[in-house]
Amino acid sequence: MKIVVVGSMAFDDVETPFGKVTRVIGGSATYFSVAASFFAPVAVVAVVGEDFPKAELDFLESRGIDISGVRVASGRTFRWAGRYHEDMNVRDTLDLQLNVFADFAPELPESYRDADICFLGAINPELQQRVLDQLRAPKLVAADTITHWIEQTRAGIAELFRRVDLLTVNDEEARLLSGERNIVGAARKILAMGPKSLLIKRGEYGVLHFSGDAIFAVPAYPLEQVFDPTGAGDTFAGGFIGALAKSGDLSPASVRRAIVYGSVMGSFVVEDFSLRRLRTLGAEDIERRYRQFVALTEF
Amino acid sequence: MKIVVVGSMAFDDVETPFGKVTRVIGGSATYFSVAASFFAPVAVVAVVGEDFPKAELDFLESRGIDISGVRVASGRTFRWAGRYHEDMNVRDTLDLQLNVFADFAPELPESYRDADICFLGAINPELQQRVLDQLRAPKLVAADTITHWIEQTRAGIAELFRRVDLLTVNDEEARLLSGERNIVGAARKILAMGPKSLLIKRGEYGVLHFSGDAIFAVPAYPLEQVFDPTGAGDTFAGGFIGALAKSGDLSPASVRRAIVYGSVMGSFVVEDFSLRRLRTLGAEDIERRYRQFVALTEF
Repeated sequence: MKIVVVGSMAFDDVETPFGKVTRVIGGSATYFSVAASFFAPVAVVAVVGEDFPKAELDFLESRGIDISGVRVASGRTFRWAGRYHEDMNVRDTLDLQLNVFADFAPELPESYRDADICFLGAINPELQQRVLDQLRAPKLVAADTITHWIEQTRAGIAELFRRVDLLTVNDEEARLLSGERNIVGAARKILAMGPKSLLIKRGEYGVLHFSGDAIFAVPAYPLEQVFDPTGAGDTFAGGFIGALAKSGDLSPASVRRAIVYGSVMGSFVVEDFSLRRLRTLGAEDIERRYRQFVALTEF
Repeated sequence: MKIVVVGSMAFDDVETPFGKVTRVIGGSATYFSVAASFFAPVAVVAVVGEDFPKAELDFLESRGIDISGVRVASGRTFRWAGRYHEDMNVRDTLDLQLNVFADFAPELPESYRDADICFLGAINPELQQRVLDQLRAPKLVAADTITHWIEQTRAGIAELFRRVDLLTVNDEEARLLSGERNIVGAARKILAMGPKSLLIKRGEYGVLHFSGDAIFAVPAYPLEQVFDPTGAGDTFAGGFIGALAKSGDLSPASVRRAIVYGSVMGSFVVEDFSLRRLRTLGAEDIERRYRQFVALTEF
């Protein structure tokens, strides 16, 4: 199955308790597409500025990612700077410059429109719907969102949710969306808003997937050092959707295995800054960690 | 296998966002022994005051629990009062009266001394060792501790740890013991202090078990309402050790299944105040929820 992803491509400045990097490659579409590319064909819709390095676009292409939908606009690339606390579940945004991303109006190349699965990264829900409108007959529509859009665009969120098969949010976003503290109660309320299924990302505590009455829980891989959590959620989503596309099977059992592959990819990306760990990753590393997830959870 | 547990028996006043109870039965030995009694023979070492209701001791006996090691001392029973926040992971202790528990000097009846498994509830490490000294040849020594003893009795803790096969702590206690924020790093350091294995209780996020290089993770059962978390950790431990004793098998696979039974019991006890839910629980409820844990985690 072929995947289309829309989201951000960015420069990040990141500071964690273990180090600091400046102007490294980030953005939801970048993390997602690289993670997904280990499993299935993926095509990206995004915008970058003229300052975005050709070498990075070449890297995406070298991974088989279709970047014909990445527009190079005049101006500078989206930029984010953040600092993680000792408790890496907490981070401060130090700087945010939308730059060319401020006028992002996603246009899908003709070759993208027959995609089987789309992943709508956490951009304005109106733009997420604009992408949906350009797809012919996707078999699975997955969407992410963030606190900002939940607070600013409630109506847009409500409209989007009715078109979504799978929503991915974190604990905080689930509580904000639902007004419920209990995560199971929050999930029930969110599912009542339209999404056919819901995946809640809980960082070091793993993920919960809700679909009808069924719940699937998978712990995060216990890492002795989480070096940089940036992009973990998008990398998880890329691994998950990628593995699902590779299987060509949207059954509950296949969704569960794909979620574990998502967890595998998320566990790798946090081992180093930016996309560094994914650049050296091989298929055998992925399979080995998948087996470690089996060993971690089987009883 | 026969279990001996030492710990507190208490009156609790508990306030949660869902209600309030006064002078209900609590204490680590109470929760543990009732949970364990669903699986295997268990004998309790504890002290209560003259005010402890005979009906409650009768209830323990009706569950087959050996209470010949429960001393009724002149004075009043240990008393705890606490209030849980909206975020039920956080609670304030409003009152704590040790009463007869202040002079607790555990003495094991002769019939207890050939126990196969002992669980040392979170009392002074010197008293925990005093219990150990009275056991002939336990096959498994499990111990719990709390922040108070870690801070006040470091030397006693160090000595105890060298005699422990399985230590149970929560996230906060693991971080305090090790000085490490990362939970895997914390576990490695704690295992280096002596315990042969370590179980970290993470409340709504489940548990992690460390033994040698092997890690086992099991999520908490996703409950739509956690009514009262009091005693969840001790009930977990009772279910876990009880199931292990019932199996008579201390192999890694058996330990994993027993941990899931512990999670099952912990998930029940939080559904109501005090021991209420356990009083109406049947073997078929336990087996049903065990199967739900399989459905929750299998992939």
